[in-house]
Amino acid sequence: MSALGLDLGGTSVRAAVLDPVSGAILASAKEQHADRSPEAVVAACVRVAQAAVAAAGCALPGSAAIGVAGQCAGHSGLVVNAPNLGWRMVPLAERLGRALGLRVRVLNDLSAAAIGEHRFGAARGVEDAVLFFAGSGVGAGLLVGGRLAEGGAGFAGEVGHVKVIPRPTTPERRCGCGQLGCLEAYTGGHALTARAREALAAGRMQGLAAAVGGDAALVIPSRIEQAAAAGDADAASLWEEAGELLGDAAANLVTVLNPARLVLGGGVLLGCPLLFARVEARLRDRASASAGQSLAVVRAALGDDAGVVGAALAGAGG
Amino acid sequence: MSALGLDLGGTSVRAAVLDPVSGAILASAKEQHADRSPEAVVAACVRVAQAAVAAAGCALPGSAAIGVAGQCAGHSGLVVNAPNLGWRMVPLAERLGRALGLRVRVLNDLSAAAIGEHRFGAARGVEDAVLFFAGSGVGAGLLVGGRLAEGGAGFAGEVGHVKVIPRPTTPERRCGCGQLGCLEAYTGGHALTARAREALAAGRMQGLAAAVGGDAALVIPSRIEQAAAAGDADAASLWEEAGELLGDAAANLVTVLNPARLVLGGGVLLGCPLLFARVEARLRDRASASAGQSLAVVRAALGDDAGVVGAALAGAGG
Repeated sequence: MSALGLDLGGTSVRAAVLDPVSGAILASAKEQHADRSPEAVVAACVRVAQAAVAAAGCALPGSAAIGVAGQCAGHSGLVVNAPNLGWRMVPLAERLGRALGLRVRVLNDLSAAAIGEHRFGAARGVEDAVLFFAGSGVGAGLLVGGRLAEGGAGFAGEVGHVKVIPRPTTPERRCGCGQLGCLEAYTGGHALTARAREALAAGRMQGLAAAVGGDAALVIPSRIEQAAAAGDADAASLWEEAGELLGDAAANLVTVLNPARLVLGGGVLLGCPLLFARVEARLRDRASASAGQSLAVVRAALGDDAGVVGAALAGAGG
Repeated sequence: MSALGLDLGGTSVRAAVLDPVSGAILASAKEQHADRSPEAVVAACVRVAQAAVAAAGCALPGSAAIGVAGQCAGHSGLVVNAPNLGWRMVPLAERLGRALGLRVRVLNDLSAAAIGEHRFGAARGVEDAVLFFAGSGVGAGLLVGGRLAEGGAGFAGEVGHVKVIPRPTTPERRCGCGQLGCLEAYTGGHALTARAREALAAGRMQGLAAAVGGDAALVIPSRIEQAAAAGDADAASLWEEAGELLGDAAANLVTVLNPARLVLGGGVLLGCPLLFARVEARLRDRASASAGQSLAVVRAALGDDAGVVGAALAGAGG
């Protein structure tokens, strides 16, 4: 019996039909969404789901799940806040379930990825694992005692919103969630890019400025990484701070949850080896000695597939 | 069938025989231990266990558990590090099991308390709860999806050792665990007392100095609280910092784990209402909006009984 999973991000949605025994993706379909209204996105979800099912040559299963880049109230099927989609309080499970004619479970994209990496990827074979991802945002997926930890209302794992800066700063760096001091507002890919652009506008990060020919629009985290590696002291200093903040947050997750394995991933971490190394060194230094001793730190293994694979497993009751 | 639980702290050990259905303590016994060597403490454990069982008029059960104020590797029965006892790598489950002639499980004291509060106390009726305790040390007990979260090796919940200070300070405040930047080294009862004594020695905290008649040995956290409440600006400033650090750490646990209930306890928090109020206000302000919205913040209900009650339940396989 094949399973259907969807992965919904800020710019695209992907559906995949999975063989839940082997982990093989039998077929998948992907669509960009220029219109991010719930109506347009639900319609896109329906199209990719039907396309994937048709390509796999199977019947639509009775249930499915969708991982969403945002805060999801699992039990109610509500997307509470998805800044990249501009959504607040969207009853996605209900709308998508009605449109597809099946039962739909909604969960955070990193929770879906955690299920995928646990069954078929980098977290295989352990009962306790933490996925720590830094991409455009920062988040975690938590496996505790062999099961996904969802929390009382489905919001567990929102490590991008742990507070790492004790008092207001200038500029204040208000997070997409509305609060001050969030990890993601200082170290997410969007935040790092914005901070580098501010530095360029203030006449700093000369090495980065030269590398992008003075065009701030070309700044992305991997260019900051290159500038830091090439000796731009301002870029190196931003990387040092980001490494400390991300490393401490990952260390604190390890200290509190004592996972056997920490899975690092996300576009920023995997695309910036220097930052990755700083984060790993920092977290090894700062996790409690007892929890750090038996910890394996590994890279995510399923790449962009983790979300749809995990969602398919979650949708099939896994 | 009654159950046997023990609670081992830095200065005393207590055993209780529990009716695991009603939660009633049928009998208990307690002993101070001046000699903290493992041999002497194990002998004291045996005496209080036998005294409690004799007083309850029941037979020694086939298994028991002991909660220990320290880092415990649950699966191996090892106390890895218990600073208040001066212990490192003590195979307590094996030694106590042999001495009592029964199977013994070792777990952290707050994990035991979490089990007790979950079954009969302030965390009753919810699947996801976090105990956050500040006493002489700082620690947590985690209930995730209805079960105690122990982590891969039994060290989960060591929130006293999350890093809250990013860079070395003067004085450096090295933690009992050996690391720098730990929450407990700035906000545990021992740390708060030491910091107030430093302030007295430096001629600050005049209000506190007057209250204790200049005798630094009389400083305890509740005296610092009184001085802060009476207008000692230095004491108020220490309380403000402690409230921020403890509040942020509790908020971050809430953000990451999304418990339905946060149970605050421990001698320092429960004995210092002003600090308690600061911690609660700070954590409500700093937890993610989604996880904070449905959160109930409550006080621990079982008091000193939580540890023995939870240990008895854990020992009986609960």
